[in-house]
Amino acid sequence: MLAQSQLDDFFSYLRFPSISADPARKPAMKDCAEWLAQKFSSFGFAAKTHQAEGAPVVLARSNFSSGKKTILIYGHYDVQPVDPVSLWKQNPFEPFVENGFVIARGATDNKGQTICHILGAEAILKTRGELPVNLIFLIEGEEEIGSPHFGNFLESHCEELRCDAIMISDTSMVAPDFPAITCGLRGIACLEVKITGPKTDLHSGMFGGAIANPATELVHLLAKLHQADGAIAVPGFYDDVIPASEAERASWRQIPFDDRAILEATGVSKLGGEENFSALERLWIRPTAEINGLTSGYQGAGSKTIIPREASAKLSFRLVPKQNPDVIAARVRDYLQSLCPDTVRLEIIYDHGGEPFYADANSAFSRAAQSALKEIFGREPALVREGLSIPIVSLFRRILKRDPLLIGLGLPDCNAHAPNETFPLAQLEKGIRLHQVLLERIPPV
Amino acid sequence: MLAQSQLDDFFSYLRFPSISADPARKPAMKDCAEWLAQKFSSFGFAAKTHQAEGAPVVLARSNFSSGKKTILIYGHYDVQPVDPVSLWKQNPFEPFVENGFVIARGATDNKGQTICHILGAEAILKTRGELPVNLIFLIEGEEEIGSPHFGNFLESHCEELRCDAIMISDTSMVAPDFPAITCGLRGIACLEVKITGPKTDLHSGMFGGAIANPATELVHLLAKLHQADGAIAVPGFYDDVIPASEAERASWRQIPFDDRAILEATGVSKLGGEENFSALERLWIRPTAEINGLTSGYQGAGSKTIIPREASAKLSFRLVPKQNPDVIAARVRDYLQSLCPDTVRLEIIYDHGGEPFYADANSAFSRAAQSALKEIFGREPALVREGLSIPIVSLFRRILKRDPLLIGLGLPDCNAHAPNETFPLAQLEKGIRLHQVLLERIPPV
Repeated sequence: MLAQSQLDDFFSYLRFPSISADPARKPAMKDCAEWLAQKFSSFGFAAKTHQAEGAPVVLARSNFSSGKKTILIYGHYDVQPVDPVSLWKQNPFEPFVENGFVIARGATDNKGQTICHILGAEAILKTRGELPVNLIFLIEGEEEIGSPHFGNFLESHCEELRCDAIMISDTSMVAPDFPAITCGLRGIACLEVKITGPKTDLHSGMFGGAIANPATELVHLLAKLHQADGAIAVPGFYDDVIPASEAERASWRQIPFDDRAILEATGVSKLGGEENFSALERLWIRPTAEINGLTSGYQGAGSKTIIPREASAKLSFRLVPKQNPDVIAARVRDYLQSLCPDTVRLEIIYDHGGEPFYADANSAFSRAAQSALKEIFGREPALVREGLSIPIVSLFRRILKRDPLLIGLGLPDCNAHAPNETFPLAQLEKGIRLHQVLLERIPPV
Repeated sequence: MLAQSQLDDFFSYLRFPSISADPARKPAMKDCAEWLAQKFSSFGFAAKTHQAEGAPVVLARSNFSSGKKTILIYGHYDVQPVDPVSLWKQNPFEPFVENGFVIARGATDNKGQTICHILGAEAILKTRGELPVNLIFLIEGEEEIGSPHFGNFLESHCEELRCDAIMISDTSMVAPDFPAITCGLRGIACLEVKITGPKTDLHSGMFGGAIANPATELVHLLAKLHQADGAIAVPGFYDDVIPASEAERASWRQIPFDDRAILEATGVSKLGGEENFSALERLWIRPTAEINGLTSGYQGAGSKTIIPREASAKLSFRLVPKQNPDVIAARVRDYLQSLCPDTVRLEIIYDHGGEPFYADANSAFSRAAQSALKEIFGREPALVREGLSIPIVSLFRRILKRDPLLIGLGLPDCNAHAPNETFPLAQLEKGIRLHQVLLERIPPV
């Protein structure tokens, strides 16, 4: 059972219109951070709001004891904008309960998920007087705008933030009572390919037939990125891909994944991609090569009969464990250069890369989490992946040298980023209990 | 020998700053047209400036006699702008002679070439009192801006303009004393190809791998427009192409064509196109498929990791005799549709087409012209082609039902459209004589 004071805390937290994208909300951001710090102080944490660049960061530490493991829990108190407000049933910052669901902006992303851990820690301290681990809460206010200053903060506080493990609840379960741990995220390598030919756009009547067309040469190169079966044709592209484990595959077979949900979300009539993989596999464990943009010559109304002087494409490659973005970028470059004829000039710019993320589901911390999730939700958690990157995961990995454990407490129909965002009261209650059970299960030092 | 009065006429004509692109030159345009009408009247033509839409059109007719053939000579009195003026040796509208070359804007394009015919007709009348044919001069003032009103003029005056043959001197000889008749021009078919996929740009991490990328599908289609040897892969594309005649090929072998001129003009290091054809053949008698523009997704700085919702390309096909643009557009459409997968939607828009031009070098008029050119310049004219279309040629063909005879009197180094445009005095003298000889050779009715 939830205590009224717990619900009150959740509602107080939700009432701050902490929209990080809106400069007019700066005072609300500050108030929200201070409320958090005060909440942590109220049950004995040493809490402080750090006002450096950007929105304040809340850092709260339990009473440390050297014989205990140290766990860092990350969350964010900022929320998405609320447009279109007219689609909300009520003021997005005036939370209310309907059929067991709390409705308010931030209900699931990320105030609801974070407060489970906060109230969980408070509950342990109230009932037992001390925590089984040292806890650090790190709650930032710029996640929804890309955490632009968070890397700097981690770097300048890395001593204070030293820990054995990191836990983040900012992803989703598979369904109500079907928990999930996100064990993998795809990485990325972004390149720009540019082909130049004549010194200026040429009259296609005067020169067409004897001068190589940069746009034509570009499409010839790009058409060779994929094989007929949808696999990527760059030599060595798959060399470092580690196959999914049998445990992962087994857990995915339990997931009620319906291709129709993707068709509906995207508006296409048929899925695309690699023939010999399921949609889930295509999204989670297969790397991709995408053309993100094409530019060449005349793009206005009607016709202009030119041979364009240049043509370029933006490419991005989604990578899976353990592909290395720099290696992939080099292989793509070598491949395209080997294909390019000498009638045009090819330039390839490597814009940036990010490593894929892969967390070992057999680590002691992950096994403790799986056991706790099973106890609370009555079912073994799925060991899922996501197709995208989560920038803060990379930051933690790089700066604190820890692979975060991603235990999502959101649900797929919680309307994150959309009007009438919700969080079930049942989920709040289970999340608070989960925190307590999980901390108990973490093996001692 | 040129008479002083002939040179005076040429200089008077050149002094009008008749730049059709410059609205401030409207009075000069009118003055120039009136000067022409007066010149025609001075040797007995019935001449009139027609002020309809746009710049005035000068129409002058000799004293018609029913037993004679009627020849229409087209020219234009408007000229290109003179920028950059600083590169001219002198005021572009103050003609002067240097080393036997008249230097002024319009010297070759098209005042010099036109006045050869005007002074030629005058000379015949002065020496013999009558012309061997009925002559119509039609001299417009909007050629350099695309002759936007000329089709309407032809249509509303087609009775008055009825003729047996049309002659235009607005192209080039191969070299000094190497005359040419332009027997073929390429036509065109312009299409837009558009591929649409998801209802909006998608996050390439969330959906990449399971959704077909419209830009990728577009490059796959476009890469199949050409075969590996550079030929066009559209089925039936070459079905209606008529091979060049042996007479044409023989005459081309005489042409001192140097690939380096194209390399220099375009700034490329190596020619492209079909392996088994010379550069001249690629430009003159081979049809082409060009991508004139590409558009898709993100085209700004850096990266944006999306699957774009759509991708499109502008295509144009240069056509050779006797390909039909409508037939070609349909074949391209059928071909691309047969290649497009059902994961995306393909739309093909046929923007416009123009037929290729092919003039029979064995017609009586063409043979008379070849014979006259040989007498004046001492060499058989080359039967050349050009890779581009000339809109007025299509207009004459469509409205007056005559294939113009294109006898260029310009020279490749006359700086048409460039600073210090020239016309050799020797060319002026030969042009005047050519007109007289040519009219004599036209077979009687």
